[in-house]
Amino acid sequence: MSILVIGTVAYDAVSTPEHNQRQSLGGSATFFSLAASYFAPVSVVAVVGEDFRGEDLAMLQGHQIDTRGLVRARGKTFRWVAEYGADFNEAQTLDTQLNVLADFNPILAPEARTPSFLFLANIDPDLQQSVIGQLQAKPRLVAGDTMNFWIQGKSESLSKVIGSVGTLLINEGELRMLTREPNLVKGARQVLQQGPRMLVVKRGEYGAICFTREDVFATPAYPLETVVDPTGAGDTFAGGFMGYLAATEDLGIENVRRAMIVGSVMASFAVESFGPERLQGLTPQAIQQRYHEFWRLTYFDGTGQRPLPIRGG
Amino acid sequence: MSILVIGTVAYDAVSTPEHNQRQSLGGSATFFSLAASYFAPVSVVAVVGEDFRGEDLAMLQGHQIDTRGLVRARGKTFRWVAEYGADFNEAQTLDTQLNVLADFNPILAPEARTPSFLFLANIDPDLQQSVIGQLQAKPRLVAGDTMNFWIQGKSESLSKVIGSVGTLLINEGELRMLTREPNLVKGARQVLQQGPRMLVVKRGEYGAICFTREDVFATPAYPLETVVDPTGAGDTFAGGFMGYLAATEDLGIENVRRAMIVGSVMASFAVESFGPERLQGLTPQAIQQRYHEFWRLTYFDGTGQRPLPIRGG
Repeated sequence: MSILVIGTVAYDAVSTPEHNQRQSLGGSATFFSLAASYFAPVSVVAVVGEDFRGEDLAMLQGHQIDTRGLVRARGKTFRWVAEYGADFNEAQTLDTQLNVLADFNPILAPEARTPSFLFLANIDPDLQQSVIGQLQAKPRLVAGDTMNFWIQGKSESLSKVIGSVGTLLINEGELRMLTREPNLVKGARQVLQQGPRMLVVKRGEYGAICFTREDVFATPAYPLETVVDPTGAGDTFAGGFMGYLAATEDLGIENVRRAMIVGSVMASFAVESFGPERLQGLTPQAIQQRYHEFWRLTYFDGTGQRPLPIRGG
Repeated sequence: MSILVIGTVAYDAVSTPEHNQRQSLGGSATFFSLAASYFAPVSVVAVVGEDFRGEDLAMLQGHQIDTRGLVRARGKTFRWVAEYGADFNEAQTLDTQLNVLADFNPILAPEARTPSFLFLANIDPDLQQSVIGQLQAKPRLVAGDTMNFWIQGKSESLSKVIGSVGTLLINEGELRMLTREPNLVKGARQVLQQGPRMLVVKRGEYGAICFTREDVFATPAYPLETVVDPTGAGDTFAGGFMGYLAATEDLGIENVRRAMIVGSVMASFAVESFGPERLQGLTPQAIQQRYHEFWRLTYFDGTGQRPLPIRGG
């Protein structure tokens, strides 16, 4: 099944203690669609400026991403300038230049109004809601992401979006901000009472955890010796997660668990290079191999066939 | 096989946003030995003051903990006063009164000099080294813990201890402080080059990760709706971990993985109450049940019998 993603395409300028990159292709829709493209057909709806490079468009199309919804508007592409400290835990935004994003109003083409899987990447919740309103059939799965900026600035609009999506993917810090609840389990329950049947909490270098009303699944992140740039890891996770679900057409909980690992696998590749570099040209073998490494990272014999040697037990 | 632990016994005064407890039994040796006692015979070497309550001694003995090495000295028991914020991530120490701990010099009784498993809980590294020097036979496993105070104040003594232990258990933040390396994998490799064959990094609410030269195993922590007091979670983890290894007498990597989960299980109980309350009177069923819940929390089908549906793959 195919996936439609609405989000941002950006040029990022990112500094880390060891590197800096001036004009790196970024944005939520970019990372998401690249990661998802390894598993399912993806169509992207986003806006770029007149400065958008032909080679970047060609790269996306080279990954069989449908870019007919990539609108080129007058002005410059959205630009994000940020810096990471030594621990890579949080980016400090130095500058945000909305440029063409300021007037973006996503209009779905007729053929894009019946997606099976829809991902509302991090953009203005009013735009996310407008996209939901343009759908002509109920998708199999609608998932959404957001960020602190909208939680603080557009909480009412965001509440409506959260009430409309089946799955919310969100950073742990942003979940706490959204729910005003320091306890993760209580915060998760709050979100699941607002509409979503599934909540995926992204925890950066600590992995991810998925809550439904009946199930909890947690995975650590892959411990990497080389982390170059964490930008886009969350959107890449979402792309792997949705891509796998769309490819397998199975929303059962055992398959969702595998999708969480696929998301983690793709995110682990994303941070190994600047921008989406490493997400280009991954081989099926490399993806399969890291999936297996996740299994080995987390496997233990817990089937209960071997009872614990508890004294007096 | 039996375990010998050298550490502290304390009275803690802990405040959290919702509770405060004035005189709670604490200390690294207390949490460790209670957790380990569910799996293997434990002997504790520590010092207490004249104010040490008979009921606390009786409680430890009620868990079949050998307290012959619990020296009662003139003066008051070691006292720690601390406060947690809403997120429970780190305690702020408000006051430390060493009291009898100031002059503590652990002397092993002749029958305590040949332990199979030895845990050097967080105390002055010079005392840890002195204990190692008193051994009359090489234990199956010597594990040690430490804290920021010794990393900053006694780094040379601590280096010697780290060179002498087979396993180092340490908090993630303290590993970074010790190695001056923000990257976890690189920091782990540094430690494994200094002597230990195994490094267990405790990550609080994010779980724990174990490095050997050949293997990495990571587990998330159990997502708890009620966290009352995180004090002692790390020592409790160590107690479950060592207790399970001592009971099974198997230091193979698959068994170490199970021990990591048993440590996590015991730590998840510890934080559900003030001090070591919840660690008293656990049933074998409760322990076995939570072990199974960890399995369910982290299980996914990753055996590779079902290849990923990668496009073009």
